[in-house]
Amino acid sequence: MSEKLPPGGPVVRQIPDGDNRERLVCVDCGFINYENPKVVVGAVCSWQGKLLLCRRAINPRRGMWTIPAGFMELNESAETGAAREAKEEACADIDIDGLIGVYTIPRISQVQLIYRATVRDGIFDIGEETLELDLFAWDDIPWDDIAFPSVKWALDHWREIGNATSWPPFSNPLGEDGNFNV
Amino acid sequence: MSEKLPPGGPVVRQIPDGDNRERLVCVDCGFINYENPKVVVGAVCSWQGKLLLCRRAINPRRGMWTIPAGFMELNESAETGAAREAKEEACADIDIDGLIGVYTIPRISQVQLIYRATVRDGIFDIGEETLELDLFAWDDIPWDDIAFPSVKWALDHWREIGNATSWPPFSNPLGEDGNFNV
Repeated sequence: MSEKLPPGGPVVRQIPDGDNRERLVCVDCGFINYENPKVVVGAVCSWQGKLLLCRRAINPRRGMWTIPAGFMELNESAETGAAREAKEEACADIDIDGLIGVYTIPRISQVQLIYRATVRDGIFDIGEETLELDLFAWDDIPWDDIAFPSVKWALDHWREIGNATSWPPFSNPLGEDGNFNV
Repeated sequence: MSEKLPPGGPVVRQIPDGDNRERLVCVDCGFINYENPKVVVGAVCSWQGKLLLCRRAINPRRGMWTIPAGFMELNESAETGAAREAKEEACADIDIDGLIGVYTIPRISQVQLIYRATVRDGIFDIGEETLELDLFAWDDIPWDDIAFPSVKWALDHWREIGNATSWPPFSNPLGEDGNFNV
């Protein structure tokens, strides 16, 4: 009596009424699976001129160095999300003072909002998803072991902003799409 | 022989391994339905000092006025998405020159990236999702019939930026969460 059921859920590609591109639609209930880019929020966090970097305990890029950052959650602001990530990954309270960059990684449909922040009272500790972490002087940053191209962009742009108190946010460096150059 | 099947799909709330909050999970296949904020991209588009506004042909807020804006799609940059929306809603090619604001509407988990742009050659026409559209001098903007609070923020911030060629992006006005004041 094993009868093969038709696949349920949004598995049929069609253009919904009033739309202009194909979405995955459930033909049983009409549910439309709108997939959209995800937002990553994070911060370049400094303390007395040094920058807080975390070595990733999870994939992708386990063992490589990154800034505190992660997926923005529902019902939070971008700044709140960036502060939450610093708390989760580096046990740090941070004070955000501006948006360094809006980066897009089209291949994986990510929008990254990376802020400039300071580590409140210089206090931090190993958080979730982190193997180790430390404050790095600019010349001591482990450039060869940075987890993602956009982390390098944010660090470079942080450096370029310098002591400015207001600035327009950066975008991807010209011609760069966030993929690794091989 | 009608036997009630257990519900399929991601319908059980649990905290996945390595996560710290509940997600909807499918207990059959392990699929985790990560829900994240959606990105709206749009532009305040000017031509010879006037601003392009569109009257919405669709809900929410059908019949009210807005700037060209909509959900960012997969595999595009934020700027590309804002330009696409201007093309779809106002048949206009636009030239983007900076990010006016990053607005968050936590209630509906939206991040809005609104750019400053000019209407190339001043050419536009009624597009999808638009009842009518026009260029408005500042004092002629239909302020009482603006579709969303964030549209007003973006227009106000555009005005505040004035002739500046670079500026830090604005956030929500202090204390405003994007809900309508009633």
